[in-house]
Amino acid sequence: MVRVAVDAMGGDNAPGEIVRGVVDALIADTDKKLSVILVGREADVKRELEACKTEKNRSTFDESRIRIVHADDVIETGDPPVVAIRNKKESSMVKALTMVKEGEAEAFVSSGSTGAVLVGGQLIVGRLKGVQRTPLAPIIPTLNGAALLIDCGANVDAKPENLIQYAHMGTVYMKYIMGVENPRVGILNIGVEEEKGNALVKATYPLLKEEKGINFIGSVEAQGLVEGAADVIVTDAFAGNVALKMYEATGKALLKLMKDGFKSNVGSKLGAALALPSLKGKLKKFDASQYGGAPMLGLKGLVVKSHGSAKAKEIRNTLMQCIDFSEQNIPEKISGAIS
Amino acid sequence: MVRVAVDAMGGDNAPGEIVRGVVDALIADTDKKLSVILVGREADVKRELEACKTEKNRSTFDESRIRIVHADDVIETGDPPVVAIRNKKESSMVKALTMVKEGEAEAFVSSGSTGAVLVGGQLIVGRLKGVQRTPLAPIIPTLNGAALLIDCGANVDAKPENLIQYAHMGTVYMKYIMGVENPRVGILNIGVEEEKGNALVKATYPLLKEEKGINFIGSVEAQGLVEGAADVIVTDAFAGNVALKMYEATGKALLKLMKDGFKSNVGSKLGAALALPSLKGKLKKFDASQYGGAPMLGLKGLVVKSHGSAKAKEIRNTLMQCIDFSEQNIPEKISGAIS
Repeated sequence: MVRVAVDAMGGDNAPGEIVRGVVDALIADTDKKLSVILVGREADVKRELEACKTEKNRSTFDESRIRIVHADDVIETGDPPVVAIRNKKESSMVKALTMVKEGEAEAFVSSGSTGAVLVGGQLIVGRLKGVQRTPLAPIIPTLNGAALLIDCGANVDAKPENLIQYAHMGTVYMKYIMGVENPRVGILNIGVEEEKGNALVKATYPLLKEEKGINFIGSVEAQGLVEGAADVIVTDAFAGNVALKMYEATGKALLKLMKDGFKSNVGSKLGAALALPSLKGKLKKFDASQYGGAPMLGLKGLVVKSHGSAKAKEIRNTLMQCIDFSEQNIPEKISGAIS
Repeated sequence: MVRVAVDAMGGDNAPGEIVRGVVDALIADTDKKLSVILVGREADVKRELEACKTEKNRSTFDESRIRIVHADDVIETGDPPVVAIRNKKESSMVKALTMVKEGEAEAFVSSGSTGAVLVGGQLIVGRLKGVQRTPLAPIIPTLNGAALLIDCGANVDAKPENLIQYAHMGTVYMKYIMGVENPRVGILNIGVEEEKGNALVKATYPLLKEEKGINFIGSVEAQGLVEGAADVIVTDAFAGNVALKMYEATGKALLKLMKDGFKSNVGSKLGAALALPSLKGKLKKFDASQYGGAPMLGLKGLVVKSHGSAKAKEIRNTLMQCIDFSEQNIPEKISGAIS
């Protein structure tokens, strides 16, 4: 049994979509490996669960695998992360993270404040022995399947030794969770030649080349990242975060323009009706929600940050990912890889 | 008269598209302000010019405003930039840059090796007095018009004082070339709060706030950049290059998937035929070639790097930009702003 403590109150669509994602995961999990603790305002969570019982494709969920733990407070996006984690003891996030710390749950999932999740993961769940930094490592879509971009968190100005650890953590994740044999590790760079890059990349490159236990393939530029040239892309959190957000923002803007274009006139509307099914099929490749949230690696338990805008589908996929993470005992494998 | 020395041999589509871009610019420049020196293999350039005379919409160009300067050699993309600029004296790039240095041309345009253009700009054309670094500053499309992303070059690990100079240079450019009154200057960051960012951003932010002569609006994240939240976005070249390349690569990948989707079956093909005109109208916003190449700022003359894949349209727009740059005497204004 994999027990996941879910922050029912985090994110733009909480608690409705969070609860629905949980319900969908329980239905998808036909092996009944999953049990969920929904942490949040009990009345709100109960109301959403009741609503699910009347919804098509949701009414059959197994309520016995859900437990509600009441939390009065919520950490808001605007709250300063460290202060919020320290002071909002009755918040859904702190309470849920504490359950992982105390062994009442194997995993924690939240769509709430990224900063608070990152701080809470470190302060409450805690780093594995030997881990210097705990990167946020989203699975990103590429033209050639999924890749792991590590680090996209808030812990900037990384040192070469941090990136070496990221390479190992990412390798473990892609191998045991995503089933990639011998994952190709690249370093995010602004050119593919070995002498290119900033001071950090130049210092890290030769170390990655020498490092045992990883399959280093050299520098990866943005285009290589999008095309899926590597399975794991290591980078300092600043550049990683910029790359990730540009990826998301550009995709969002183009899809919006496309939709606007389709709505322009009668002809384009008709055209859209005819072309959309195949178009959606192609664009599905770039749907980040299929992979679930971003794991924070190097912690004693599993902490996953799903998008603030996550809907039920992403939450469901995040929970399914938690099963593999726990069954594969990723923390133990990461400890082994970096020791 | 604005004299532009064009590297006829640089880029994936040279010399054909370069020559055609020059011809199109001469036709578009009805005020006859432009004269062009095409630097490259004379026979190849002449052949392309002859071909233009037989092409629709091109046959009327004024050949008297074109001069060909023969250059035997070409700097290839793979050539190490510093070595190439120093040793390939007979290359089209070095010969054309030298014309700017010696006052035979006001501007230089090339679609060739970015590294070589950046090195050549510094070593041959030379920095303005007081300028510490000469950033590459592409005009990028946003949902809300054009913006300048400065620096996207190869000169990484910038210091706060470099970014302050970029803010001034970008302000001058957006004001006098793009006609933006009081350009909004933002700093590329991974959060909008003042305390967010890496060491460079944290050190630069308070300085930008205090700096006179710029309209600093704070941090800009990727989404803000795409939405056009600022007119000038200052950043270290590493993050800037990553952001720019992610922007381009994501756009390219999505458009490819879209095209594949449209080609899937008879229905989608028909749909595409109906929807494409409005779709193209909307997506035009994101066509980077409308703004021409990326200027390298802070030099004694104008050096512009157009995309390696640039076609005639981008070259034409780049040349039109050169007229404004020269007429507005941007180097003098930049000197004034940073002194």
